[in-house]
Amino acid sequence: MGDPQHRQNWKLTLAYDGTDFFGWQVQPGLRTIQGELAAAVERITRERVLPQGSGRTDAGVHALGQVASLEIAAPIPPCNLRRALNRTLPASIRVLSCDHAAAKFHARHSARAKTYEYRIFRGDICPPLLARYVHALPRSLDIEAMRSAAVRLEGEHDFTSFAATDPDRAARSSTDSAEGADGRGNRRIVYESLWSDEPDQLIFRIKGNGFLHHMVRNLVGTLLEIGQGRWAETAIVEILKAHSRRAAGPTAPARGLYLVNVDYELDIPAQVC
Amino acid sequence: MGDPQHRQNWKLTLAYDGTDFFGWQVQPGLRTIQGELAAAVERITRERVLPQGSGRTDAGVHALGQVASLEIAAPIPPCNLRRALNRTLPASIRVLSCDHAAAKFHARHSARAKTYEYRIFRGDICPPLLARYVHALPRSLDIEAMRSAAVRLEGEHDFTSFAATDPDRAARSSTDSAEGADGRGNRRIVYESLWSDEPDQLIFRIKGNGFLHHMVRNLVGTLLEIGQGRWAETAIVEILKAHSRRAAGPTAPARGLYLVNVDYELDIPAQVC
Repeated sequence: MGDPQHRQNWKLTLAYDGTDFFGWQVQPGLRTIQGELAAAVERITRERVLPQGSGRTDAGVHALGQVASLEIAAPIPPCNLRRALNRTLPASIRVLSCDHAAAKFHARHSARAKTYEYRIFRGDICPPLLARYVHALPRSLDIEAMRSAAVRLEGEHDFTSFAATDPDRAARSSTDSAEGADGRGNRRIVYESLWSDEPDQLIFRIKGNGFLHHMVRNLVGTLLEIGQGRWAETAIVEILKAHSRRAAGPTAPARGLYLVNVDYELDIPAQVC
Repeated sequence: MGDPQHRQNWKLTLAYDGTDFFGWQVQPGLRTIQGELAAAVERITRERVLPQGSGRTDAGVHALGQVASLEIAAPIPPCNLRRALNRTLPASIRVLSCDHAAAKFHARHSARAKTYEYRIFRGDICPPLLARYVHALPRSLDIEAMRSAAVRLEGEHDFTSFAATDPDRAARSSTDSAEGADGRGNRRIVYESLWSDEPDQLIFRIKGNGFLHHMVRNLVGTLLEIGQGRWAETAIVEILKAHSRRAAGPTAPARGLYLVNVDYELDIPAQVC
């Protein structure tokens, strides 16, 4: 089924509840988003492909707009592929859109910016229906100090202090590119870093040109320490300069984190469904 | 710990995500709400008690306001018991309030009315973060016919056509009382039965003096058949009169059902927390 000489490149936008998955990346014997998507594509087209994500999300991290690219030979209309994938995938993974993409489009290499959100539930009792999707923290927080510290993260910085130090990820401590392959090391540009205060929820929103492994959760863990008075709001600058994970705060739990969307330069799909 | 001669009766109000539990009722080797609550009480007070629920909820059914009663000897203030239970229970079960109750209060026997909601997601793609909490049904529905049929359920009726027929529950086909023990057989009074149309969701709300096993889900399954044109809105009256489960529609999935609250006559707790 399908002519390998006429493979079509695709851009898929996905939402998922990360709770019951071992993250994005395929791992033998474990349930992952990439693995579920590959299995669904194979079931529909009989083609074995490995969809490329805009970046890895860790176990328990959710997505509202993850992007994947893949090439398939089956001549299937975009709306039909989307419908067939949603019929095949578990309800915890949905394909929001399926577009034909230019041959050179690659979900990770073509990405220009990503936006993450981190949701903190502030009420006394976290409703069970929200428990999988927020970090429940009923303690009092100095939100103005957290806002002031967050803004200081905007611009280009070396984010080594906020990168995971786990040995198995040392060679690939970035979520969005092979470490060193693009020559930018641990330097990233943060375009926006802010807290918004909604009823019962405090939401951290960060947009940047790339993120190191655990970077958003380590930033949130550090900002929460500032909010609880452990450090002054200006300490965030000293922590950045330390270039040491030990200078920063703890890693906030995965359940509060969402990959919200990915921006591309060439974002003009041939056909949208 | 605690003097068995001075046992205090308690009224607990609970919310839970039913997805990962085998329903309310304790079953050997299975994770249930009643079992988790009993284990938490024992861990806190060292007393083995079996909390009584206002009624059983089935596997996968959620609660926003289930009520349980239990007697314990430990002289613990209500706020402390609530906090200790919420520290001990999984995040998918929360104790919303803990009140001292009169000695004669019993969550099931004292209940005067219960309200359930059933949530249907109407959009094309059900967001993964909602998937556990709604029945996704993107088909077109005649909502006015469903409303007209729903209203015809109000009043006192024999609801045999909407009661589960599973043999293992035959002797206790009611969720709220031992079958026949109260002399009302399968007759129940429905005080309110209505559909409300919210953005992307259609919500069925029903309040009654008691419900048979699977009754709300069988009513919803039948009303959805009417909404899809299988039967006229007046058929609901014929189905009631048939006194046969085979006359009604299918059982709607558990994930859309919520026990919203339970009303009591003597609802004046000694101390509220």
